[in-house]
Amino acid sequence: MGELLDRINNPNDIKKINETEYRKLAKEIRRFLVHQVSRTGGHLSSNLGVVELTMALHLCCEFPYDQIVWDVGHQSYIHKILTGRKEEFSTLRQFGGISGFPKRKESDCDIFDTGHSSTSISVALGLARARDIKGDGHKIFAVIGDGALSGGMAYEALNNAARLKSNMIIVLNDNQMSISKNVGGMSNYLGKIRTNTNYTGLKKDIENKLYKMPHLGGALTESIRGVKDVVKRLFIPGMLFEDMGLTYIGPIDGHDIKQMVSAFENASKLDEPVIVHVCTKKGKGYPPAEKNPSRFHGVAPFFVSDGSDRGSDNDSLTYTEVFSEKMVELAAEDDTITAVSAAMPTGTGLAAMAEAYPDRFFDVGIAEEHAVTFAAGMAAGGLRPVIAIYSTFLQRAYDQILHDVCINNLPVVFAIDRAGIVGSDGETHQGIFDISFLMHMPNMTIMAPKNADELCSMMSFAVEHNGPVAIRYPRGNAYTGLSENTDEIVYGKGEWIREGMKVALVAAGSMAETAVEVADMLLDHDMDVSVINIRFIKPFDTQLLDELKKAHTHIVTLEEGVLTGGFGHAVEDYYKNDDVEVCCVGLPDKFIEHGSVDILKKKYRIDAESITEMILDRLSGK
Amino acid sequence: MGELLDRINNPNDIKKINETEYRKLAKEIRRFLVHQVSRTGGHLSSNLGVVELTMALHLCCEFPYDQIVWDVGHQSYIHKILTGRKEEFSTLRQFGGISGFPKRKESDCDIFDTGHSSTSISVALGLARARDIKGDGHKIFAVIGDGALSGGMAYEALNNAARLKSNMIIVLNDNQMSISKNVGGMSNYLGKIRTNTNYTGLKKDIENKLYKMPHLGGALTESIRGVKDVVKRLFIPGMLFEDMGLTYIGPIDGHDIKQMVSAFENASKLDEPVIVHVCTKKGKGYPPAEKNPSRFHGVAPFFVSDGSDRGSDNDSLTYTEVFSEKMVELAAEDDTITAVSAAMPTGTGLAAMAEAYPDRFFDVGIAEEHAVTFAAGMAAGGLRPVIAIYSTFLQRAYDQILHDVCINNLPVVFAIDRAGIVGSDGETHQGIFDISFLMHMPNMTIMAPKNADELCSMMSFAVEHNGPVAIRYPRGNAYTGLSENTDEIVYGKGEWIREGMKVALVAAGSMAETAVEVADMLLDHDMDVSVINIRFIKPFDTQLLDELKKAHTHIVTLEEGVLTGGFGHAVEDYYKNDDVEVCCVGLPDKFIEHGSVDILKKKYRIDAESITEMILDRLSGK
Repeated sequence: MGELLDRINNPNDIKKINETEYRKLAKEIRRFLVHQVSRTGGHLSSNLGVVELTMALHLCCEFPYDQIVWDVGHQSYIHKILTGRKEEFSTLRQFGGISGFPKRKESDCDIFDTGHSSTSISVALGLARARDIKGDGHKIFAVIGDGALSGGMAYEALNNAARLKSNMIIVLNDNQMSISKNVGGMSNYLGKIRTNTNYTGLKKDIENKLYKMPHLGGALTESIRGVKDVVKRLFIPGMLFEDMGLTYIGPIDGHDIKQMVSAFENASKLDEPVIVHVCTKKGKGYPPAEKNPSRFHGVAPFFVSDGSDRGSDNDSLTYTEVFSEKMVELAAEDDTITAVSAAMPTGTGLAAMAEAYPDRFFDVGIAEEHAVTFAAGMAAGGLRPVIAIYSTFLQRAYDQILHDVCINNLPVVFAIDRAGIVGSDGETHQGIFDISFLMHMPNMTIMAPKNADELCSMMSFAVEHNGPVAIRYPRGNAYTGLSENTDEIVYGKGEWIREGMKVALVAAGSMAETAVEVADMLLDHDMDVSVINIRFIKPFDTQLLDELKKAHTHIVTLEEGVLTGGFGHAVEDYYKNDDVEVCCVGLPDKFIEHGSVDILKKKYRIDAESITEMILDRLSGK
Repeated sequence: MGELLDRINNPNDIKKINETEYRKLAKEIRRFLVHQVSRTGGHLSSNLGVVELTMALHLCCEFPYDQIVWDVGHQSYIHKILTGRKEEFSTLRQFGGISGFPKRKESDCDIFDTGHSSTSISVALGLARARDIKGDGHKIFAVIGDGALSGGMAYEALNNAARLKSNMIIVLNDNQMSISKNVGGMSNYLGKIRTNTNYTGLKKDIENKLYKMPHLGGALTESIRGVKDVVKRLFIPGMLFEDMGLTYIGPIDGHDIKQMVSAFENASKLDEPVIVHVCTKKGKGYPPAEKNPSRFHGVAPFFVSDGSDRGSDNDSLTYTEVFSEKMVELAAEDDTITAVSAAMPTGTGLAAMAEAYPDRFFDVGIAEEHAVTFAAGMAAGGLRPVIAIYSTFLQRAYDQILHDVCINNLPVVFAIDRAGIVGSDGETHQGIFDISFLMHMPNMTIMAPKNADELCSMMSFAVEHNGPVAIRYPRGNAYTGLSENTDEIVYGKGEWIREGMKVALVAAGSMAETAVEVADMLLDHDMDVSVINIRFIKPFDTQLLDELKKAHTHIVTLEEGVLTGGFGHAVEDYYKNDDVEVCCVGLPDKFIEHGSVDILKKKYRIDAESITEMILDRLSGK
């Protein structure tokens, strides 16, 4: 691993390392990170960027007494390494292994589980209030990227932090990126601060001159409340934060440990919240990642030598890619179609739209609430906006969907990517709640395609529909089977895939593929069951359900999402006075941990084998 | 009505009024507002404050061509008066009458339905993009209060607006209040701008002097990019907004029509978004409201003479008051109990806590997301925070509850006020989704009390529970009946209220009272039914449900919320393999309009008579 890293086995061990060896330790950590992530996959660029920053924080902290809240949390690898979890890195993000995010259950040095963006200042402020009320005296840090600062929650917290009369330190980790390039007013502002390299020297110079200037004396000086304030307003970067009542220190070099330690120690002596602005470079120290930090943001296993993909020679299209192409095609046909992303043009496949129709593509930054209501505004103005967003992040805009889109009944299309089990990111990122939280919203239509072609037909349908539509599709390769089933999309209508008897499998989206596998397995048991692709989760096809009950005694619903409040329960309600037995396949009422999608589907019994077994048991009266 | 107001019957009629008569018209409008609202109840203070502002906007606009988005929307009464809805004011907020909020279906001059805070800039920006893409040229305004500016969404939108290269005008209506007094960094900042009355004159003076100063010449001047920028940074109020890339004009007097018209017209000529900062006085022109704007924020019918309550001599306690007293009692017993409000200390009953234990009470402003995660942070730090919030506003923090509180499984208590039908505020404010959106969150416990005493016992129970707990209770007077049923609260256990046979009514919270009424009515039909108060909506008492199925063929669930994804559907799922008929009483899949609670309950058939009728029909096989 490296001789210095070998000496770091427990929290606070970094303090045994001699100051002159910090640079060497940083190098060893980077080598370790690249080596490990190249095998397991994971978040690389962001961690390479915060090696020195994390070391500096650990040099100033005593764990678990002091507390660090990692915004988003995917940049906590070095924190894990420095708190005794180095040996477990070979299991990173794998089922049963350590998580790629802070986890309270992993270590008492992880004070808060994070995953979504822009929460850390709120959490840290809560911790600070708790500390003060309980009369404790530990240090509290929130480490937040400049990208996360575009999330409104971070601003709400800054706004509230200004009233705290004790210390907490907000480390603004400014790498000029969220996952992609940052955007918006705040980002421009930080850019201005960074490029004004002359600030410090200049400030001194002007200060001296102003103090000596006769012209500014007398009444005038008084009326502007003292020259010092003026100078501050003139030349101190971070005045925007100071205007909000927060003390600002920076910008400082986020790869200079000594400078950071000194800033953190000075900041921690103040009786108020302090923003320490550090500038770091994403991907630092690994040339392929420095060159292309987006590609190494969340990365699959790769070859260390050149950063190329270790993976399969898989050349099938993902659902994201199918969406991406179709989006450009639709935009070509209809000038009123626009697209919105919340800081993920690449992840969601909207980059192609951004390139083809830059005037009709909007990246609003990490700001899901605004993204949705902004789209609602465009729809009210006569456009047909499509928001592409991961299921887990759409959660952040629940009220905007309900209150702004659905009450106004506006034609906004939600392209919900990563709907279902996402795998290695775990609890905070599973896309398993969207059906349940959209299902009870009046005016909402929810669709899910069985395969790649159907995603395209559904998109064509959705942009023509006069009201909100959500289309959910899973992470990974788009299913290309069942291509013979190409019935036209008709509002609220499902589709027969196979006509059998006794048992009907009624599948939503990705589970259609599974349903067909189940049907095949049941054939081996001499059972010829029906398979339905419901297409519309809401409103679902009640005429079809009425038909089903004629020739079937058992209806099995299949969905990749939590059961409570989901599709199956709605079907159950529909059939409640009928003489059919409804059985719902879906996820239980718990958070789903990280691990491969296959392992998790098996564990939670939503894979074909488990479902087949369940049906056989059910029918045999077990 | 007043002779000038008589001439205003259609949109744009204000333009027929002579400039010299504006003051008189404003007076007539105020008299009309006070008169109408004194009879119907409604939002008074905010409307009195924006009389001149709305007039100025209408003088600059051509409706419905130009568009105004009213943030929150309760200040849109004058807009309604000026767009031909004056005659309908006697029906304000009543069933079938005009709404107290903008409604697209009421008028084409209402471009967007609003109700919740901080959405207007996002909507207006969407409208602006639509206008530009479609090549239109109309004006677009967002009118947002300084209180709403603490909502993170508004900041997300400002951040994004900075990139628009065409015009839209954000009117910052600064009355130094949200519903109560404003708080936080942004509020302090605006305060600083307002009190610096010397700005304009001073700016000119300094500018002249600086230009002439020899000391600032040469290299130094260049390096600070010109004196003009420096001066701007020094003395222009609104620099925070300018730092974000937005043009700022203000502050200007929000009761001076001429000044505002000129500002709006100048602002509309720029090719960029502009913030126009106007200062208004809530309650202006009606002394009781000027003196106590909070009391006249949302007000019940009152006597115009002195502003005193016209209403009933109702002296029973509301649920809010019961909560308020119990909260102080709990805080007295336990030092770790804290309370959080999002700008509604009075509405939620936390004002008493704020007074008794100011160090443990936190008003975070209109910032529901931050409120929840801030509480999560306090809980992670060992405290027992209670967030008191209206059901409809809790929607805004869906992801914070799920991702920050539930994943971390933290002991945060959600005191959900106004859960159920709230009445006259209508669609945007009904508290009917909370069961459905909390039900599918792992680790969440949901309780609902049958009466005032039970709210107290549940609160005592909740602050001791090691995990998230929500307690939902309705608007209005706390039920004091069923006081003989005082079984101790046991986790997950329901309570027998009446033991009968054949039919069991299983009620959640407020519906226990209704269930007993239904049971009484059924007695007249010689039916002696059972009544259960479920207490725990999640996890509900399955042992009790198992018992019920022995002596009952029909289970009727009762909840004041939407059926989809709610309590009844979960009970249905539980009983799916049993031979009982489950029938769910609750609200349909639609937005519920405004009107009195009684009328709405009757319309949606969740009142005792309708339920009794439904049960009798069911049993007679109709």
